[in-house]
Amino acid sequence: MAARFSGVRRRTLDLCAGLSAEDLQIQSMPDASPGKWHLAHTSWFFEQFVLARDPAWRPRDEAWLYLFNSYYQSIGPMHARPQRGLLSRPSLDEVLAYRRYVDDAVCQLLANEPDAELTTLVELGLQHEQQHQELLLTDIKHAFWCNPLRPAYHAVPATEAHAPVPLRFIPGREGIVEIGNDGKGFAFDNETPRHRELLHPHALANRLVTNTEYLAFVREGGYREPGLWLSDGWATVQREGWGHPLYWDDDLANEFTLAGMQALVPHAPVCHLSYYEADAFARWAGARLPTEAEWESAAAQVAVAGNLQDTGRLQPASAAGGDDMLQLYGDVWEWTASPYISYPGFRPLPGSLGEYNGKFMCGQWVLRGGSCATPRDHLRASYRNFFPPHARWQFSGLRLGQDR
Amino acid sequence: MAARFSGVRRRTLDLCAGLSAEDLQIQSMPDASPGKWHLAHTSWFFEQFVLARDPAWRPRDEAWLYLFNSYYQSIGPMHARPQRGLLSRPSLDEVLAYRRYVDDAVCQLLANEPDAELTTLVELGLQHEQQHQELLLTDIKHAFWCNPLRPAYHAVPATEAHAPVPLRFIPGREGIVEIGNDGKGFAFDNETPRHRELLHPHALANRLVTNTEYLAFVREGGYREPGLWLSDGWATVQREGWGHPLYWDDDLANEFTLAGMQALVPHAPVCHLSYYEADAFARWAGARLPTEAEWESAAAQVAVAGNLQDTGRLQPASAAGGDDMLQLYGDVWEWTASPYISYPGFRPLPGSLGEYNGKFMCGQWVLRGGSCATPRDHLRASYRNFFPPHARWQFSGLRLGQDR
Amino acid sequence: MAARFSGVRRRTLDLCAGLSAEDLQIQSMPDASPGKWHLAHTSWFFEQFVLARDPAWRPRDEAWLYLFNSYYQSIGPMHARPQRGLLSRPSLDEVLAYRRYVDDAVCQLLANEPDAELTTLVELGLQHEQQHQELLLTDIKHAFWCNPLRPAYHAVPATEAHAPVPLRFIPGREGIVEIGNDGKGFAFDNETPRHRELLHPHALANRLVTNTEYLAFVREGGYREPGLWLSDGWATVQREGWGHPLYWDDDLANEFTLAGMQALVPHAPVCHLSYYEADAFARWAGARLPTEAEWESAAAQVAVAGNLQDTGRLQPASAAGGDDMLQLYGDVWEWTASPYISYPGFRPLPGSLGEYNGKFMCGQWVLRGGSCATPRDHLRASYRNFFPPHARWQFSGLRLGQDR
Amino acid sequence: MAARFSGVRRRTLDLCAGLSAEDLQIQSMPDASPGKWHLAHTSWFFEQFVLARDPAWRPRDEAWLYLFNSYYQSIGPMHARPQRGLLSRPSLDEVLAYRRYVDDAVCQLLANEPDAELTTLVELGLQHEQQHQELLLTDIKHAFWCNPLRPAYHAVPATEAHAPVPLRFIPGREGIVEIGNDGKGFAFDNETPRHRELLHPHALANRLVTNTEYLAFVREGGYREPGLWLSDGWATVQREGWGHPLYWDDDLANEFTLAGMQALVPHAPVCHLSYYEADAFARWAGARLPTEAEWESAAAQVAVAGNLQDTGRLQPASAAGGDDMLQLYGDVWEWTASPYISYPGFRPLPGSLGEYNGKFMCGQWVLRGGSCATPRDHLRASYRNFFPPHARWQFSGLRLGQDR
Ligand SMILES: [Fe+3]
Ligand SMILES: [Fe+3]
Ligand SMILES: [Fe+3]
Ligand SMILES: [Fe+3]
Repeated sequence: MAARFSGVRRRTLDLCAGLSAEDLQIQSMPDASPGKWHLAHTSWFFEQFVLARDPAWRPRDEAWLYLFNSYYQSIGPMHARPQRGLLSRPSLDEVLAYRRYVDDAVCQLLANEPDAELTTLVELGLQHEQQHQELLLTDIKHAFWCNPLRPAYHAVPATEAHAPVPLRFIPGREGIVEIGNDGKGFAFDNETPRHRELLHPHALANRLVTNTEYLAFVREGGYREPGLWLSDGWATVQREGWGHPLYWDDDLANEFTLAGMQALVPHAPVCHLSYYEADAFARWAGARLPTEAEWESAAAQVAVAGNLQDTGRLQPASAAGGDDMLQLYGDVWEWTASPYISYPGFRPLPGSLGEYNGKFMCGQWVLRGGSCATPRDHLRASYRNFFPPHARWQFSGLRLGQDR
Repeated sequence: MAARFSGVRRRTLDLCAGLSAEDLQIQSMPDASPGKWHLAHTSWFFEQFVLARDPAWRPRDEAWLYLFNSYYQSIGPMHARPQRGLLSRPSLDEVLAYRRYVDDAVCQLLANEPDAELTTLVELGLQHEQQHQELLLTDIKHAFWCNPLRPAYHAVPATEAHAPVPLRFIPGREGIVEIGNDGKGFAFDNETPRHRELLHPHALANRLVTNTEYLAFVREGGYREPGLWLSDGWATVQREGWGHPLYWDDDLANEFTLAGMQALVPHAPVCHLSYYEADAFARWAGARLPTEAEWESAAAQVAVAGNLQDTGRLQPASAAGGDDMLQLYGDVWEWTASPYISYPGFRPLPGSLGEYNGKFMCGQWVLRGGSCATPRDHLRASYRNFFPPHARWQFSGLRLGQDR
Repeated sequence: MAARFSGVRRRTLDLCAGLSAEDLQIQSMPDASPGKWHLAHTSWFFEQFVLARDPAWRPRDEAWLYLFNSYYQSIGPMHARPQRGLLSRPSLDEVLAYRRYVDDAVCQLLANEPDAELTTLVELGLQHEQQHQELLLTDIKHAFWCNPLRPAYHAVPATEAHAPVPLRFIPGREGIVEIGNDGKGFAFDNETPRHRELLHPHALANRLVTNTEYLAFVREGGYREPGLWLSDGWATVQREGWGHPLYWDDDLANEFTLAGMQALVPHAPVCHLSYYEADAFARWAGARLPTEAEWESAAAQVAVAGNLQDTGRLQPASAAGGDDMLQLYGDVWEWTASPYISYPGFRPLPGSLGEYNGKFMCGQWVLRGGSCATPRDHLRASYRNFFPPHARWQFSGLRLGQDR
Repeated sequence: MAARFSGVRRRTLDLCAGLSAEDLQIQSMPDASPGKWHLAHTSWFFEQFVLARDPAWRPRDEAWLYLFNSYYQSIGPMHARPQRGLLSRPSLDEVLAYRRYVDDAVCQLLANEPDAELTTLVELGLQHEQQHQELLLTDIKHAFWCNPLRPAYHAVPATEAHAPVPLRFIPGREGIVEIGNDGKGFAFDNETPRHRELLHPHALANRLVTNTEYLAFVREGGYREPGLWLSDGWATVQREGWGHPLYWDDDLANEFTLAGMQALVPHAPVCHLSYYEADAFARWAGARLPTEAEWESAAAQVAVAGNLQDTGRLQPASAAGGDDMLQLYGDVWEWTASPYISYPGFRPLPGSLGEYNGKFMCGQWVLRGGSCATPRDHLRASYRNFFPPHARWQFSGLRLGQDR
């Protein structure tokens, strides 16, 4: 656990290696946070939920408990989210020292035969840290995209040319299945309890929807045909003037990536879609989005592997051939047809940690499978990500599903 | 069918009997519409979907097709919803003449051995008309409430004193059940197809939550305790300054009704709650909202009867004793724990009527059971109503459910 | 005075003759008020400032004192301005009865040798009523324009063809002049005290700017050239998408009038301009707007006559030839280069009437000369009208001025 | 000129000495800009208006011409003002190098017997730089105030205790006076032409309004009495919940300064008032604001000296006794009763520089006299500053005036 702790914590810093104090300061929209804030908040999480269990614990700075609380109302008031980018103090150096202060204290605890509760809490803190690693990447991508200079976060990763993988629908299981976490290994509360679900006859596509396929939707007027869209989606398209995925250029030939502006890779998965766009594309394609239960019953049979954060590519990659279900993990989070609600019998974690997931079960949709920014050891088949239907700044795309 | 047509159409006019042209002109918020607009739009619906099937049909006024289209994008552009209250022309008299013009034409069609498709479309138009009857009542209630004079729509209905009915939880069915419309009688597309659902062990309360019970929640600080609320709900409570149901007075003793300001009836169902409030109350009460499948499997065994529009009371009434499940139909729409999404295998109606229900399947929650403003012959066990979680101006309340 | 009282009050009703209760109910924007509200508020003004001086006065309805107070904070709270259109009650009939109730009481007072203070207050009430007569016309014009049917308020008035009057600049007075009301006859407090102003060498155009002249500005790209605009004006043009005066059709050939859509009259004064547009046009024309002192010193020498409300045309008319300064009164209010601020030594009226004019002396510009909707006996050379720079729904245009 | 150039440019850097790259990155509201942006924009100004006159000039970076243009529409499009805080690139180091690049080029030009036009443009650039020095201070003050840690920009300056100076009104000149720049030394276009103005009998207070005096206004309910306020001011007070000057603590005993939170100095000038507050205070005190002509005719007789940026205090200071008019220059900008409009015969500078001042002559009020953040050699009696009436983040206060 101590090794894992150090590894995950160091990984967060590694992700910031090419970023300046100024880069880590900026907040491009209320949904995103500055990199420095992510660095501090993840440390606050350990301080609050691990270290502060010891009544003798002295916080690094009382005021920081206010600044770096994200949304835990039961702990106390917090700095307003849209104003996170205004905190030039504490400085990046102070935040890095804060991280070391917290790391030292946690490591000391872990050194002394930690009990199960401590281990669980530290693991929760690490899973939390990994979520923020992904957000740190998507947030800096958005911030850099807001800069007309379109700076690059890293150098262009090497790409391999793959022949396109033909689209096939693979039938899924039918009848009563069990989904949800089975209690082996870490899981968030929202993945529990493991429970029965009834699957109707269906099939899932063997791979993700590609840029080429999505381009056809764009070119054939998908964004101008209200009949393809949910009512809220159409209103959003009109209000925001959407005509293509978030980071695509208006020329439909290039897109903004963490390596700066790059030519669209034809057979790479389309990315940075809202739920509205994923849903409209599926309707246009004569298909539908998979439910999360359909997805999980397929994914449960497959090992977690793919184009994840660990590859360092940080951009979705073309499917490499094979007859199996491809790209279940990594590349892009897959929007599902399932609203994010509780599983039958769901119980949030006790205490303030109960605010982690449960209170967001309204107005969001489940995404599955992780993305090119998700750490491999953070994922599992039962993992439920969730975002509001208009969100586009995550690495989000889709796989088609259909009734049989 | 002709008799039903005339009866439903006449009923709409009867509901306007005590309202002046000025009353029918006003629109108190974008979600609501003027009474005159309801009168015109319901006629437009018959004109558009029934009469205009005949190529020789001459519309009463071409421009009105634009004014009274609600949201059917595939038919063409439409008058902006928030501006419906600005249409002083056509006048109420012209709109009433429009209704007669449409009625005459439909009656003529019905007189000539109508085919099945015509009958289906007319029935759809009547169900649509009945939905707008309820909206007409909830919209004028809201508009009158916005007037500091707090005018009354009708005289105070007689109330009967009932002893409070003790709260009991009645176990529901378990395992695979079928829900959705069985094809007997009219149903909207969103109630289909009839399909299997898996019910987990559960029980439902024998009656609706009462004013007295909700008052305890208010008095014990329910609106000040973030831990009881969904995150979006808490943000809404803060932003809007909510401290009680929509029409309650700040004294917590009186409420606005269609009969003007009235004393709260202690054991009558609490009403005009948002989903957020219903959900928070259930959490506070150690219970949860029922799913729509749980509700429907209970309601399918019970005849449609209760305090519905036909009683003329137009205000929820106290439960009258009995050992059965009470108040399943009428009084208040019951918020469920189910987001409004499609049933497995759902197909929207063909053509423009496909916009009726399907495109709203995002960001809303299902309500079941009808209210004191719903016509009795408009309801059925499979009926799915839906509203966004912040909506409070409908007659909406809740019944508790629990896991077993 | 009694005759004038009855005449002015009757005139208000005459202006409503062609309007239904529905027409008089609607409020098309927060800046405008429903006709019914104007009818009630002008009566409230007499009740509040004339009748209520008698301690024994019994208001028609206590609640109406709240509903029909416009902005007199020192009297008490008031109904929110943007919600005036929601007051379907009191009905038009009740408001008309309220008018009679007030009229009877005022007439009774006037019958008994009224003292000077009473006469002054009644005259103030009549001047106030006349201001609302003009607003009633501009507000119903805006409301009808919001209706896609574009209804007409009255029949098309006859127009006379006039040869265009060539533009000439007539030198004005120079040096110290006196402006402001001279104490003969009624004046609002903001026209006082009469005081000295220093006029710099200047000249004023002999007539108003015409549609033809303004059309040249539009056609030559006036709305696309930021250099012609004030910074706030350019931001407004961009944000609102302005490309021509408020009621012009996009075809630049027709405009909405109180007689419905009509062809633009080439040599009629351009109308429904904001200050931003008047200022930009003047800059484009190599001229500037007159100051209010320049305007008043010219107008003081001319009798009040012109195309005013009394002609019944209710639309600006072409200048009829002559060597004098034309169109000083009537047709359109002329935007001046003078911000609306107090005259040196200004004292607001005592008591609540002090809120009539003084508190608006920030962020508005002075307009002079009255319009085709202003009653002739309401105008005088010293009259100061004022509106914010973006306002366009008044009959507002411009006359050019220049330095010499 | 070369020495002045180097001195002013160095002074800007000196003002940033205690600020980190993170501090210089943040933008706390659309009205304010990041320090880094000020550093870059002032260099852009020299590049655009001085260096680019040479057709052979090579810009440091073409894209920066877009990023650092503030509002010169005639030069081309520009980065959106509210997004200036998102530009983490170019880095502070790059911006500092940009400054040196521009400085070197300007110094080279100045080394070669510069012609009059060049000298004028460089002087304009320096005056512009000095304006941004003041903004840099007011903007970082606002940004630091938004940080709950309330950081200090510099150490607490020493204060001298002064006995309060009794308030006296000193009569001003009467009749025709000349104001505006007399052509000796630099002036902005908006200070010209020198022209005659008519002064009415008046007197001006011998010193600025103090914290103690303003505290009495607050304590006696000034913020709760609508009768004291302009209508827009009252609406702002209600909407924003104002109850004291911008940086005062709710305890009315402490205020935020560039040295962090400090006790209010009783006889120091009240500061960070909006026009609305200055106007309301004057009305409460039975006085009024001076006009700009009254102010200038008094100030023209007094040498520019006082608590200006050069003292390094950066906070208003108590008046030190004397029988003269005190504090005319420095401490706080004095709101005047004069809307910011053009002087008679005003001509903006030719070309793009014409956008510097003229296009803002709408909706703003003139302030006079400079503040504790204004460089001494930037001020003169004819200097006109201007801000919208709600602006409070400048060092703005008031001096009373009265009619005689
Ligand atoms: Fe977090
Ligand atoms: Fe409808
Ligand atoms: Fe009025
Ligand atoms: Fe600048």
